[in-house]
Amino acid sequence: MPVKYSYEQLYSFTESVFLKIGCSARDATLAAQSLLIADLRGVDSHGVARLSGYVRLWEAGRIRATPDIRIVHETPSTAVVDGDRGLGLVVAPFAMKVAIDKAEHAGTGWVSVTNSNHFGIAGSHAMMALEHDMIGIAMTNGSAIVAPTFSRERLLGTNPIAVAIPAGTEPPFVADFATTTAANGKLEILQRKNQDAPAGWVQTATGEPTCDADSLKKGGALLPLGGDREHGSHKGYALGAIVDIFSAVLSGANYGPWVPPFPAYVPMPENQPGEGIGHFFGAMRIDAFRPKEAFRHHMDQWIRRFRAAQPVAGQPRVIIPGDPEAAWEKERRAHGIPLLEAVVADLEGVAAKLGVAF
Amino acid sequence: MPVKYSYEQLYSFTESVFLKIGCSARDATLAAQSLLIADLRGVDSHGVARLSGYVRLWEAGRIRATPDIRIVHETPSTAVVDGDRGLGLVVAPFAMKVAIDKAEHAGTGWVSVTNSNHFGIAGSHAMMALEHDMIGIAMTNGSAIVAPTFSRERLLGTNPIAVAIPAGTEPPFVADFATTTAANGKLEILQRKNQDAPAGWVQTATGEPTCDADSLKKGGALLPLGGDREHGSHKGYALGAIVDIFSAVLSGANYGPWVPPFPAYVPMPENQPGEGIGHFFGAMRIDAFRPKEAFRHHMDQWIRRFRAAQPVAGQPRVIIPGDPEAAWEKERRAHGIPLLEAVVADLEGVAAKLGVAF
Repeated sequence: MPVKYSYEQLYSFTESVFLKIGCSARDATLAAQSLLIADLRGVDSHGVARLSGYVRLWEAGRIRATPDIRIVHETPSTAVVDGDRGLGLVVAPFAMKVAIDKAEHAGTGWVSVTNSNHFGIAGSHAMMALEHDMIGIAMTNGSAIVAPTFSRERLLGTNPIAVAIPAGTEPPFVADFATTTAANGKLEILQRKNQDAPAGWVQTATGEPTCDADSLKKGGALLPLGGDREHGSHKGYALGAIVDIFSAVLSGANYGPWVPPFPAYVPMPENQPGEGIGHFFGAMRIDAFRPKEAFRHHMDQWIRRFRAAQPVAGQPRVIIPGDPEAAWEKERRAHGIPLLEAVVADLEGVAAKLGVAF
Repeated sequence: MPVKYSYEQLYSFTESVFLKIGCSARDATLAAQSLLIADLRGVDSHGVARLSGYVRLWEAGRIRATPDIRIVHETPSTAVVDGDRGLGLVVAPFAMKVAIDKAEHAGTGWVSVTNSNHFGIAGSHAMMALEHDMIGIAMTNGSAIVAPTFSRERLLGTNPIAVAIPAGTEPPFVADFATTTAANGKLEILQRKNQDAPAGWVQTATGEPTCDADSLKKGGALLPLGGDREHGSHKGYALGAIVDIFSAVLSGANYGPWVPPFPAYVPMPENQPGEGIGHFFGAMRIDAFRPKEAFRHHMDQWIRRFRAAQPVAGQPRVIIPGDPEAAWEKERRAHGIPLLEAVVADLEGVAAKLGVAF
């Protein structure tokens, strides 16, 4: 049975852990906020469940607690940021802030990031743009667990894309999705339940279609959105490739099969062409295109028309991207965040190891 | 049996048709180039096969042959372009040129377009950036033939996205795809052959899954990339929605179910909130991020690593986006463009109606 914790409890603990490994007060706050937003929004695989993983990366010397994150190249609307091996949870808000500042002056801002680490959920960074009346975009590459169409080999990460768009009286449109048929977290749920995966989620180590949810552990791979060629997997592959190139080839980070793995026990790929993992962020000021009021009015109309569409049998309505996550956030801020026993045990382990109260 | 025509023959005829309906010499050249690049690259559904459709839109007064295409708002890195009801084939290169000019000065350029029409293939416009050492991006909305996840109603177009990325000695990476499981052109091929569609391509008028390739004609809908919720169709729906919003809500064009249909005989939707259809273009100067040579070197390495991946059984290799289209272009420039008899008859009809030699 899951146990519920308040946001404040988990936030305070997470912040203490980041302080304990040597982060500055400002960075510990940022990192805790970045991580906890995943738990609030119902993306349990990317919240405190990953805290012990970040600590292990720090122990392995792959994360620097006091990085010198800086702009290494820029133009009026672009920048490359070197994350100096910092926590992605801290590097990403820094880079997104650069994109927002650029957009204030040039209309848009676009930042490619090198030498970073796992940044939590893409949506939390894209959403930073909303309060500035901007559209926010965030993407990242990740270690290779996805096979492109026709490939036996794993060459791409799940490479998510998030786009946050402000509206008027309606809540913002927030899309945040892996460019695979299903995110790895969903596969792990099936593994725990000992259930089969739907067709089109994974392939075997020799590249055959399979419904074995354990396939990834046996050398198989996740499949790009679409699943197979007949269902458009070449499009999911292209999307994942674009994320990889914007995040890493444009910044000087590692790409394709050379992206560092998240688990600290997995050895680093050999002959890496770049530094750390890469991200890409964008901010577009609404009134660099159109008066804000006109945009907000039409965005509200867009959202209402889609929400009011006649649903298929058995479904209450068409969902606006971001609505389910906003509902989770409201519920969990009010009534707490449920954690699985295994996650609680993991956090207790972190607490004991670092001497931080949980 | 298809009959082959040389690029020059078809180009000359198409240019004459656009001149005959009143386009300027410059616009007729641009429009013919935009249209013919689809035939060269093997996207037969979007080339001269559509010429008669553009002529009918002009006859119906929905396309203006001598539009006053202009920038109506701009910042250092953005612009909104009013297409003045011109041919999308002419409006799109104008807007992409604005994006490229902005990128020369500000690092990137982003242009949302209102009051336009069908612009041919997205890839041809994105590729304009390549010779400027820039990444090019092009997208457009289209009339509603796609049902979002859980919707009975058609609310989105096939809303394609194209991204063109320069490399070094390797050919450029060019992705160009509809945000649906399958493009409408592929469905039409199955209709002609009287074959079933694969699961996940279409639904019936009441929103049930179906393999009936005629379903779209019977009030059904194409499905977003992913096919159904279990296979990630909410991601394809989100992508199509993002294209719609960037192209139309940001510019003042029509969006969602209000986008004008391509066939001139289909009545315009009522209570349209905007003008014409919308597009969105982007250009990012490579050296606004990183020295060109370093980028080109790593892009070549990216392409070679993916092309060299061990393929699954029965497939010769992993495909780099843009490779098949580049092969078509080489073949067809050398040996001609095959046209179906029905297309030839259609062009003969256009020739007879306008008094242009075919």
